Amino acid sequence: MSELRHDPIQKRWVIVSTERARRPSDFHILEPEVHIPFSPFAEGNEDKTPPEVFAIRSPESSPNAPGWFVRVVPNKFAALNAEGDLGRTGVGVYDQMNGIGVHEVIIETPQADLHLPDMPQDQVERVVSAYRRRLQDLMQNGRLRYILIFKNQGTAAGAALSHPHTQIIGLPVTPKTVRQELISAQEHYLRKERCLFCDVIQQELAAQQRVVMEDEDFVALVPFASRFPFEIFLAPKRHAHDFSRVSDADLGAFARALKDALLRLKHTLDDPPYNFVLHTSPATETVPRRPGYWQTLEFDFHWHLEIIPRLTRMAGFEWGTGFYINPMPPEDAARYLREACL
Amino acid sequence: MSELRHDPIQKRWVIVSTERARRPSDFHILEPEVHIPFSPFAEGNEDKTPPEVFAIRSPESSPNAPGWFVRVVPNKFAALNAEGDLGRTGVGVYDQMNGIGVHEVIIETPQADLHLPDMPQDQVERVVSAYRRRLQDLMQNGRLRYILIFKNQGTAAGAALSHPHTQIIGLPVTPKTVRQELISAQEHYLRKERCLFCDVIQQELAAQQRVVMEDEDFVALVPFASRFPFEIFLAPKRHAHDFSRVSDADLGAFARALKDALLRLKHTLDDPPYNFVLHTSPATETVPRRPGYWQTLEFDFHWHLEIIPRLTRMAGFEWGTGFYINPMPPEDAARYLREACL
Repeated sequence: MSELRHDPIQKRWVIVSTERARRPSDFHILEPEVHIPFSPFAEGNEDKTPPEVFAIRSPESSPNAPGWFVRVVPNKFAALNAEGDLGRTGVGVYDQMNGIGVHEVIIETPQADLHLPDMPQDQVERVVSAYRRRLQDLMQNGRLRYILIFKNQGTAAGAALSHPHTQIIGLPVTPKTVRQELISAQEHYLRKERCLFCDVIQQELAAQQRVVMEDEDFVALVPFASRFPFEIFLAPKRHAHDFSRVSDADLGAFARALKDALLRLKHTLDDPPYNFVLHTSPATETVPRRPGYWQTLEFDFHWHLEIIPRLTRMAGFEWGTGFYINPMPPEDAARYLREACL
Repeated sequence: MSELRHDPIQKRWVIVSTERARRPSDFHILEPEVHIPFSPFAEGNEDKTPPEVFAIRSPESSPNAPGWFVRVVPNKFAALNAEGDLGRTGVGVYDQMNGIGVHEVIIETPQADLHLPDMPQDQVERVVSAYRRRLQDLMQNGRLRYILIFKNQGTAAGAALSHPHTQIIGLPVTPKTVRQELISAQEHYLRKERCLFCDVIQQELAAQQRVVMEDEDFVALVPFASRFPFEIFLAPKRHAHDFSRVSDADLGAFARALKDALLRLKHTLDDPPYNFVLHTSPATETVPRRPGYWQTLEFDFHWHLEIIPRLTRMAGFEWGTGFYINPMPPEDAARYLREACL
């Protein structure tokens, strides 16, 4: 009927249904898409956004004018301020600092309705190379500890505009989930001298129960202790902790794997809203492993992408407990995604 | 513009807006209520639920028949099985066990449309005394580590039925969020020999910036590093870790404070969907503080109720990062709730 499964990376128990009855069509999308006809991100509307910080564009074009393929601009409604001091202070038991950081938008294409799974391969490569490039640049900013790259696709997933875009938030702190992953991987490495993520990937490839796609370079899995139906974990098979140092060849392979995973979701679940988050190592190069003992982050992380389709109503008590009930057996979800007609 | 605030209990940074512009009416409810006319929980439909495990009823009435005030039944669609072995096993890097546990429903009233904030005081007392009673009973079940009491109110908050009810899930593991609270409180106590929650409450009562309601026995606050707009933290002012041992007098005071907090939410936000979760100490009486050194849980926890109105679309990337952006300054939210006309 159900199992309790423990995620060795997030150190989290999940109730996972083992009833083999659910089909993809049992999961409904809850909110209708809100379509706003005007796109400030479209070609010709470059003056509707702040000036670009980076773009991939044809050689004869000028900045902030048509002729681009991918364009990165500061978020007009930024959650964080680029200028100012961190101003760390304590207020009794509390700690606070100013909302200093970076908030950018990567406009994935000039076309308002061409989404990642349907883009030509070379355009997806441009998008992920913009991820790498912004990551490289922002990691040089000494005030930023962590650069988050994430995408909200569809109204129910929190997208305010339907024009294909990804967001970047550069933070002066490391988010809790990434911190937990770092701690788990560190503990594992200290005991085994192996990467925790590599061990998980190796076990999954041997078991072949939850593998969605595998090629020479990448693997897409439904995690053993998935919190949500049809969650996907996408990672390079060879150990690599830092997305900003990915080679051009691996970037091409990542673009192929990403397009493949999103296409499988689209076809299996009738174009669902989704979020994805790229988890890479923090911007600081070294962390204290134990007092007085510093080491590079190399085996404390393994970069990966987490894709969460927004299918179930996020039923209440998860927010107050960090505890999840997943009604879809991960093995079944993986089979549906694996067998999707592409 | 914004601040980064650290929650000392959850050890979590939140981006909190400090713009003083938002009003309660800026937060819209996203999903329409789904109204199902038939209620299996109504008086006269006792045969539509599994047999009751506890009820508060008039002396002349019989079990599973009309004449009750509060009724507790096993959940017909339980996420966990009451019977069987835990069967803990390891599968390579993973851990798993059978989905053993308890899943019950507390039917708060025979009336399908009388919700907690509108109930007479004595009925709210019956509801919370049913919480205490089930907690007392389930804590005797040696296989359960943690008993979760939570409520989903409204369709957008995950309620499948509108008839007022609370749920109980008894788990063989401690949920991650509660575990973090225990660890934080333990660390604080080891350094200061004071309860972390008591320190937070004392500081908030002194500052009076985020207090929603305070009486002799209870305090309702908007947390300093709230994740969501109009989040409420409700706790007893006197130190107490275990809700199952609350006195009758404190139970009455809790019922008053709970009704008050929910009424303030209802009036400030036009009857919003919400979730609440009761956090109490785990069912096990002792935990290892450090290897070889055991102590009671007394100062490692302080029971409390967390109320989360479901106003904002849970914007995507929170799920992948554990990082939150709260658009409503907690001080403003507290003021609106404090000044609500009751």
